Amino acid sequence: ANDPASQALGMHIVSVAPGQASMSMPVRADMLNGHKTCHGGFIFALADSSFAFACNSRNAATVAAGCTIDYLAPAFEGDVLTANAAEYSLSGRTGVYDVQVTNQEGKRIAIFRGRSYRIKGQVVGD
Amino acid sequence: ANDPASQALGMHIVSVAPGQASMSMPVRADMLNGHKTCHGGFIFALADSSFAFACNSRNAATVAAGCTIDYLAPAFEGDVLTANAAEYSLSGRTGVYDVQVTNQEGKRIAIFRGRSYRIKGQVVGD
Amino acid sequence: ANDPASQALGMHIVSVAPGQASMSMPVRADMLNGHKTCHGGFIFALADSSFAFACNSRNAATVAAGCTIDYLAPAFEGDVLTANAAEYSLSGRTGVYDVQVTNQEGKRIAIFRGRSYRIKGQVVGD
Amino acid sequence: ANDPASQALGMHIVSVAPGQASMSMPVRADMLNGHKTCHGGFIFALADSSFAFACNSRNAATVAAGCTIDYLAPAFEGDVLTANAAEYSLSGRTGVYDVQVTNQEGKRIAIFRGRSYRIKGQVVGD
Repeated sequence: ANDPASQALGMHIVSVAPGQASMSMPVRADMLNGHKTCHGGFIFALADSSFAFACNSRNAATVAAGCTIDYLAPAFEGDVLTANAAEYSLSGRTGVYDVQVTNQEGKRIAIFRGRSYRIKGQVVGD
Repeated sequence: ANDPASQALGMHIVSVAPGQASMSMPVRADMLNGHKTCHGGFIFALADSSFAFACNSRNAATVAAGCTIDYLAPAFEGDVLTANAAEYSLSGRTGVYDVQVTNQEGKRIAIFRGRSYRIKGQVVGD
Repeated sequence: ANDPASQALGMHIVSVAPGQASMSMPVRADMLNGHKTCHGGFIFALADSSFAFACNSRNAATVAAGCTIDYLAPAFEGDVLTANAAEYSLSGRTGVYDVQVTNQEGKRIAIFRGRSYRIKGQVVGD
Repeated sequence: ANDPASQALGMHIVSVAPGQASMSMPVRADMLNGHKTCHGGFIFALADSSFAFACNSRNAATVAAGCTIDYLAPAFEGDVLTANAAEYSLSGRTGVYDVQVTNQEGKRIAIFRGRSYRIKGQVVGD
């Protein structure tokens, strides 16, 4: 969202709070695959970005250790997708986050689970 | 690789065969995160693209049903990453693919597992 | 729950409804690992059983295609674990289910995501 | 394998080496589901046990942080399943393991990926 790649994809931040982040992205024509539905890679990018914001919302530097996405329903051109990331668990150096991606009608498009690993340092002033 | 997004990321196809695909991507400065390592989203994009090619290498139209990635080691600016996707299983309408992402020294950077679902139609002439 | 393995583990069904199932299991001394916490395999078994009940609650025969579990917090002897399985998505032949495993205080112990595949036939009268 | 639950399931250890473990289990009649194929929970149990042995083969105490299994082909009564676990990555406190479950003909039945987290202490003398 604050990096060029996210901006190029039209993502913007809806909200960020400790352990949470919400981001949205309109589905553009150049994001469609041959079936005229949004390519999964862009849905992943939205979910992954909101996961990254939620991870780093506590001002501790974390990196992604891995993630899992399941695509539930197709998204079409003109849809506006919203990814809501919430911290499920944070213990020791590891965290687990859940991200739900919905369209403008609240329909679930994908679910994403992210695993984070905290490294040394802080987000600000690092 | 044959779409603008993949081209913008500098990906190119090394090889494609039935049930298999190999793609490579150099890590550029604009792909680094605050820790000076390649952002996971770009590693995912490379793995996901090779998965898509392997899925569609049989000329049957498939979509991604979901995937899991685990990041094993960091990638740095100037590294050249290669993703090798191979079909593990294909039965009925569903397939499971394994993608290994390595750097130019053969070190494992990430492992990805993709699940595909075959829909009606063909890749060519659809 | 209605099979010998589930019974031997002390599981019982709390409720079953279309697309949902809830099961519980007390943590016994013989389920502990060397760290005196419940072995993950038993937590998995509880989540997996509730997933199976939720899948088959619609009287269509389904099989598990795969699943992912993340362990969030330890469970101890005497804890009573409850797994709540809910259908996230059901389209075509595939379904995605979410299972939350909590202890008697409502603390999250694990999260599980199951993927089902519907085969021919019905649960009853098959 | 050295615990009562594994013994009750008929598992035995084929080999253990640093970062690796191999275990086998015959499929018994009481492991079948309504479709006359081995219930996924037992296949998981075999994979999970070999993962645990591989994790702890270095004499450092680790716990499972999570895992993912994909079922590739059915297993039938009388089949002898073998799970081969190998360390993919071990860095800092976290490890990633790959487990392949095959039948007596070498056919892939399931693939499993486990994530470990090292805690303080050792397996022996802890």
